Amino acid sequence: MSAPILVQDRLGQIRSRKKTPANPILFLNFALSNAYNIKYINMKSYIEANKDRFLEELFSLIRIPSISSEQEHKPDMVLCAERWKELLLEAGVDKAEVMPTAGNPVVYSEKIIDPTKPTVLVYGHYDVMPVAPLELWRTSPFEPVVRDGHIWARGADDDKGQSFMHAKAFEWMVRTGNLPCNVKFMLEGEEEIGSPSLYGFCEEHKDLLKADVILVSDTSMIATDVPSITSGLRGLCYWEVEVTGANHDLHSGIFGGAVANPINILCKMIADLHDADGHITIPGFYDDVLVLGDEERTLMAQAPFDEEQYKKNLGVRALKGEKGFSTKERTGIRPCLDVCGIWGGYTGEGSKTVLPSKAYAKISTRLVANQDYEKVSRQFVEYFEAAAPECVSVKVKPCHGGAAYVAPLDLKAYRAAERAMQEVYGQRPIPTRSGGSIPIVAGFEKILGIKSILMGFGLASDDIHAPNENYPLEQFFRGIETIPLFYKYFAE
Amino acid sequence: MSAPILVQDRLGQIRSRKKTPANPILFLNFALSNAYNIKYINMKSYIEANKDRFLEELFSLIRIPSISSEQEHKPDMVLCAERWKELLLEAGVDKAEVMPTAGNPVVYSEKIIDPTKPTVLVYGHYDVMPVAPLELWRTSPFEPVVRDGHIWARGADDDKGQSFMHAKAFEWMVRTGNLPCNVKFMLEGEEEIGSPSLYGFCEEHKDLLKADVILVSDTSMIATDVPSITSGLRGLCYWEVEVTGANHDLHSGIFGGAVANPINILCKMIADLHDADGHITIPGFYDDVLVLGDEERTLMAQAPFDEEQYKKNLGVRALKGEKGFSTKERTGIRPCLDVCGIWGGYTGEGSKTVLPSKAYAKISTRLVANQDYEKVSRQFVEYFEAAAPECVSVKVKPCHGGAAYVAPLDLKAYRAAERAMQEVYGQRPIPTRSGGSIPIVAGFEKILGIKSILMGFGLASDDIHAPNENYPLEQFFRGIETIPLFYKYFAE
Repeated sequence: MSAPILVQDRLGQIRSRKKTPANPILFLNFALSNAYNIKYINMKSYIEANKDRFLEELFSLIRIPSISSEQEHKPDMVLCAERWKELLLEAGVDKAEVMPTAGNPVVYSEKIIDPTKPTVLVYGHYDVMPVAPLELWRTSPFEPVVRDGHIWARGADDDKGQSFMHAKAFEWMVRTGNLPCNVKFMLEGEEEIGSPSLYGFCEEHKDLLKADVILVSDTSMIATDVPSITSGLRGLCYWEVEVTGANHDLHSGIFGGAVANPINILCKMIADLHDADGHITIPGFYDDVLVLGDEERTLMAQAPFDEEQYKKNLGVRALKGEKGFSTKERTGIRPCLDVCGIWGGYTGEGSKTVLPSKAYAKISTRLVANQDYEKVSRQFVEYFEAAAPECVSVKVKPCHGGAAYVAPLDLKAYRAAERAMQEVYGQRPIPTRSGGSIPIVAGFEKILGIKSILMGFGLASDDIHAPNENYPLEQFFRGIETIPLFYKYFAE
Repeated sequence: MSAPILVQDRLGQIRSRKKTPANPILFLNFALSNAYNIKYINMKSYIEANKDRFLEELFSLIRIPSISSEQEHKPDMVLCAERWKELLLEAGVDKAEVMPTAGNPVVYSEKIIDPTKPTVLVYGHYDVMPVAPLELWRTSPFEPVVRDGHIWARGADDDKGQSFMHAKAFEWMVRTGNLPCNVKFMLEGEEEIGSPSLYGFCEEHKDLLKADVILVSDTSMIATDVPSITSGLRGLCYWEVEVTGANHDLHSGIFGGAVANPINILCKMIADLHDADGHITIPGFYDDVLVLGDEERTLMAQAPFDEEQYKKNLGVRALKGEKGFSTKERTGIRPCLDVCGIWGGYTGEGSKTVLPSKAYAKISTRLVANQDYEKVSRQFVEYFEAAAPECVSVKVKPCHGGAAYVAPLDLKAYRAAERAMQEVYGQRPIPTRSGGSIPIVAGFEKILGIKSILMGFGLASDDIHAPNENYPLEQFFRGIETIPLFYKYFAE
């Protein structure tokens, strides 16, 4: 291209040898729309000039209800992948493909500037969680709106908002000549259901996915004034259990007292999964849990945490967890077990008396480093089935699972992320262990032999997986600003 | 009317002084359609001649989905009451009215033949239970069909089928000149939700409802070859409980292990309602329970009961109940506590991870003679609210309740019912204590001072309150045959 080169100085002023608009924003838009070859435009100005377009592009992804756990949304998964492909091509990749898997497709894309330079593989997911209970949403989950400085929608943060920051940071690097290394993008459509197809996809495409580091924005930081990087993730195991009493629903008067009620039995079986101290009772469950030394626990305890404010935000008078551990430890370094859903009998309006035939629950555990999720899954199935009294029959269906993950703090990529965030947020980020799970991150390490950096910009208040998910515009734009700095320091 | 009098002899042959069809059925229809004044036609012939019409009339009641616990069916309650009124007028009552109450209307109707003669008050209910889970019904619950000798529909037995037998038995008595006493009918539309308005209705209309006995068919007999009369009913208490943890649904990874899960807590609270021996742990719950003496327990144990067959019918390997009592005792003379419904968190397809904000359950107890349901209700509310750990808040909403009831076996009306059933079924009926509840029956005794006779023709296999409710045609027609005999012996 023979378009003139534009130079932006440290104050954001743009110098040019041609007569162009004096206001830097107007100038930038003029330059972009005239296909100028722009260099050294600083990120802040670029964002300012393009923010409406950035949001419109993100919203075009959000509007597609790509709920991976609901069969009816199968066509939306393909639509969303195709839309990602378009957006990546517009952002400046060399190529982008929607690649089939055993399940929902993967969007793969790359820009190779020099094979001798390091390669960053950006991972994200375009699938989202279900939206029930719909009645608790203040605005429609798939019609994104900006209100009070936040984007409100399912996927606003997790992970459409966060992964799309990478596309826009990449766009800036490409358009302004600031891309210091090769980039690959991999966006999957099954993260929220445990990435069942991505493991196979990675096995099959080991060469294609070769990279020096995997960069992921799918986690949170402590607060906007307390930046943090997730150095560990919990693993996950998930089961659906079914307890059957009589072969059909019975009259609770005629049979009540003589025939086992599967709801009462299920409640007892669930209650028995914890002891009085909040320990999980599944035999062998804690066998492989690494117990942190006092020194590391002391370091962890230094991260700012206001328990009173935490309780206030949740609206609870008291917290509850495993005896002998602090709140941050309970979510960071200790496993836990929660019932995610339960149902059985009559749940409609009014007071129907019935002795139901069946009761169901969805049960999940979060695992910590060194726990083998497949072993834990077997332990639970065996224990729960054996715990069933003779008066009922119990079925346990293992659903998805994944291992925990830890990133060492002396990794070059971790240090690059640390410097990038420090530059934008003005403070050195604290390494944290997240209670959440991204099972595939442990999978990447196992299959591809690549470590991941979890540089997330979400906040606890984003209500991911819940009604009224949201993402602060400030975090969206600061994320875009931070990412190119990661590339810069990682490529140094 | 000047129509000729017809006489039927003991063999069912009809003698007439006019030229009429020789076949007794054809003759009977000819006679009915020509407004003959029929006398002494025996019940069996009458049923045979009219059975299609009886069923069509019953079906016209069943087709109205009069579910009292669901607001959307409010208009159906009025429709069903109006249809009852029409059917009673056609059956030959002097008057019939749809009378307002604070809730659904009551159908009141009477035929007073002689104020000096005894009066029977027939009680029944035109409301039915909800039909969920709809997918388990083999045919639509409100489109009655006859298959394999049974009527299949919601209300086929409970209580449209059973109460309608009284209208048809009454029709025969009126049309054939066999009515030996005064009859009043009272059909309510709120039995399945605990008759909240009928108590007030009885208080207000004590004079109108004056009678010597209340006759009710809303219970079961042991088997068609083991007739029985229900001499006792259990009482009932019903509550809806709500457990709240955090003020909104949370990510089960980020918060799991540190914040109370209301489902886990609710399960524990429900589990703690029974001890290891199956006793209910609510303080004071058993205080007023009358413990039966060994002699009465020995008598009860003589009723035929095949526990192996009972288990086989239910499809269970083992029964479960209070230690120290037999199966029949557990449902007949002992109280019990069952969860009728439970729900919370994610209950849809797939494996959504969530730490829910709320969990709910519908809990009921069945009470026995001498337990005060209002006292038990208070005991439960106090206990359950106090049992809530500080990390959650618990609300308990008392729903309906009612006292238990016992009919003495030496009551004249009981003996009349015994003789009537013995005549039709060929065996003396066994007095049984039903595990079910008709709370208003205890209310009748308290408010109106009238004892009720629970002469029910249902069978355990009728699946009342459950999918595929049904009623054997044989029981429907034998019930119609039995009822006039009760009137005959009661009026003697």
